[in-house]
Amino acid sequence: MKILLVGASGTLGRAVHQALSHHQVITAGRGSGDLRVDITDSASVQRMFEQAGRLDAIVSATGSLHFGPLAEMTAADFRIGLNDKLLGQIDLALAGQHYLNDGGSITLTSGIVSAQPIRHGANATAVNRALEGFAAAAALELGRDRRINVVSPNVLRESWDGYAPYFPGFEAVPAARAALAYVRSVEGIANGQTLTVW
Amino acid sequence: MKILLVGASGTLGRAVHQALSHHQVITAGRGSGDLRVDITDSASVQRMFEQAGRLDAIVSATGSLHFGPLAEMTAADFRIGLNDKLLGQIDLALAGQHYLNDGGSITLTSGIVSAQPIRHGANATAVNRALEGFAAAAALELGRDRRINVVSPNVLRESWDGYAPYFPGFEAVPAARAALAYVRSVEGIANGQTLTVW
Ligand SMILES: NC(=O)c1ccc[n+]([C@@H]2O[C@H](COP(=O)([O-])OP(=O)(O)OC[C@H]3O[C@@H](n4cnc5c(N)ncnc54)[C@H](OP(=O)(O)O)[C@@H]3O)[C@@H](O)[C@H]2O)c1
Ligand SMILES: NC(=O)c1ccc[n+]([C@@H]2O[C@H](COP(=O)([O-])OP(=O)(O)OC[C@H]3O[C@@H](n4cnc5c(N)ncnc54)[C@H](OP(=O)(O)O)[C@@H]3O)[C@@H](O)[C@H]2O)c1
Repeated sequence: MKILLVGASGTLGRAVHQALSHHQVITAGRGSGDLRVDITDSASVQRMFEQAGRLDAIVSATGSLHFGPLAEMTAADFRIGLNDKLLGQIDLALAGQHYLNDGGSITLTSGIVSAQPIRHGANATAVNRALEGFAAAAALELGRDRRINVVSPNVLRESWDGYAPYFPGFEAVPAARAALAYVRSVEGIANGQTLTVW
Repeated sequence: MKILLVGASGTLGRAVHQALSHHQVITAGRGSGDLRVDITDSASVQRMFEQAGRLDAIVSATGSLHFGPLAEMTAADFRIGLNDKLLGQIDLALAGQHYLNDGGSITLTSGIVSAQPIRHGANATAVNRALEGFAAAAALELGRDRRINVVSPNVLRESWDGYAPYFPGFEAVPAARAALAYVRSVEGIANGQTLTVW
C-alpha cells in the first residue's frame, strides 16, 4: 500500500513508521519528512495531498493540545487544541478523502485522556472525544469501502519522563505496542472505531 | 437561585425558561434578552458575566453547527461548529466559573447526534462529543461543590418540520420534556454527566 504518515518523526510516529515499513510510506511533518505540512493551515494540507497523489492510507500521529488548570483556562487556550490536534487532523481526513483510493483508510490519533480525564486535561478530553465522534460519524458517510478509525494510546513509555506527573498510576505502553493499532486500522476491517491501547 | 440562561429566546430556551421560572432567571441572547452576548466573542462573554454578577447557575441553550455532506465538507465548514456551539459554550463555562457561587452549576447543550450519527452530521457528532467530554473532565476540576453537566436532547417536536428529513425514524420529544433535564442538572446533584432526553 501507498501510505501517507503525518508526524512520522515524532515519538509515536517513528514507531508507527517502523510498524508500517513493509508498505510504501511517504512521511510528512512540519520540519521534517518527504513532504512538509502544517496541519493547522488548510492550504498547506491541500498542497501536501497534491504532492502525495493517490493514497491507500492516511495516518496521522500528530497534534498539539493545551494542558493547564481549568481555573486559569481561557477560550484562547482552549482554541489551541481545537485548531491543532482536532481541526488539523480532521482536515487531513476532509481534504485527504479526495485522494483516498477505494478500500483505503484514514487513521487519526486521540489518547487515553478521552476516556480517563486527568488534572489540567479538559482540553485534551474534549479534543480526543471530538476526534472519536468524528470518526464514528464520518465512517458512515465515507463510502466506496473507505474506512476511518482513531487510535487512542495510553501514555507512551518513551514520553513517560516528561508526562509522569500528569498521569499518576497510568501504565505507560511502549510506542511499538501502540503502533500495532495503526497496523490493525490500516490492514484490518475496523471502521468508525476507537482502537484503544492500554 | 439566580440563573443566567443564554439562548433563552430559542425553541429549546423558551421551554427551559418556563421550567426554571420559579427561580430568578436572567435571560441572554445575541439579539434579545436581559443581557446581549455573542458567545463566539470572548470579550462579549466576559462583559455579560460582569453585568450579570454572582450566579447560582449558568445554563446554555444555544450554539450553531455545520450540516452538510462529508464529501463536500471543508475545514472552514467544520470550524463553524467548533467556534460556535463548541467553543462558545465552553467559554460560557470557562469565563462563567469565576462568577459561579459555591455549590452552583453549569449546564451546556449537546444533542442526540453525539450518540446517534446522522447523514451530514459529522460536525455535530464531533462537537457534541467534545462538549460531553469537556463536562466529564471539567467536573473533576471545578471544585467548591460546583457542578457541570450537558443535556443531550433528541430532536424537538417544535423543530420537527424543518429537521425531519435529516432524522429518519427519530422520535421527536416536546421541548418541555427536554427542559426537565435542565432542572435536574440545576437543582439535582448530577456532575460531569450527559443527561439524555430520548
Ligand atoms: N506521547 C504520548 O505519550 C502520547 C500518548 C497518547 C497520545 N499521543 C498523541 O500522539 C500524537 C503524537 O504525539 P507525540 O508524543 O509522538 O508527538 P511528538 O513527538 O511531538 O511528534 C509530533 C510530530 O508531529 C509533527 N508536527 C508537529 N506539529 C505539526 C504541524 N503543525 N503540522 C504537521 N506536523 C506537525 C512533528 O513533525 P516535525 O518534527 O517535522 O515538526 C512530529 O513528527 C499527539 O496527538 C499526541 O497527543 C501521544
Ligand atoms: N431544536 C432541536 O431540535 C434541538 C435538538 C437537540 C439539540 N439542540 C440544540 O439546542 C441548542 C438550541 O437550539 P434551538 O433549536 O433552540 O435554537 P434556536 O431556536 O435557533 O435558538 C437559538 C438561541 O440562541 C441565541 N443565539 C444564537 N446565536 C447566538 C450567539 N452567537 N450568541 C449568543 N446567543 C445566540 C438566540 O438568541 P437571539 O434570538 O437573541 O439571537 C436564541 O435564543 C443548540 O445547541 C442545538 O444544537 C436543538
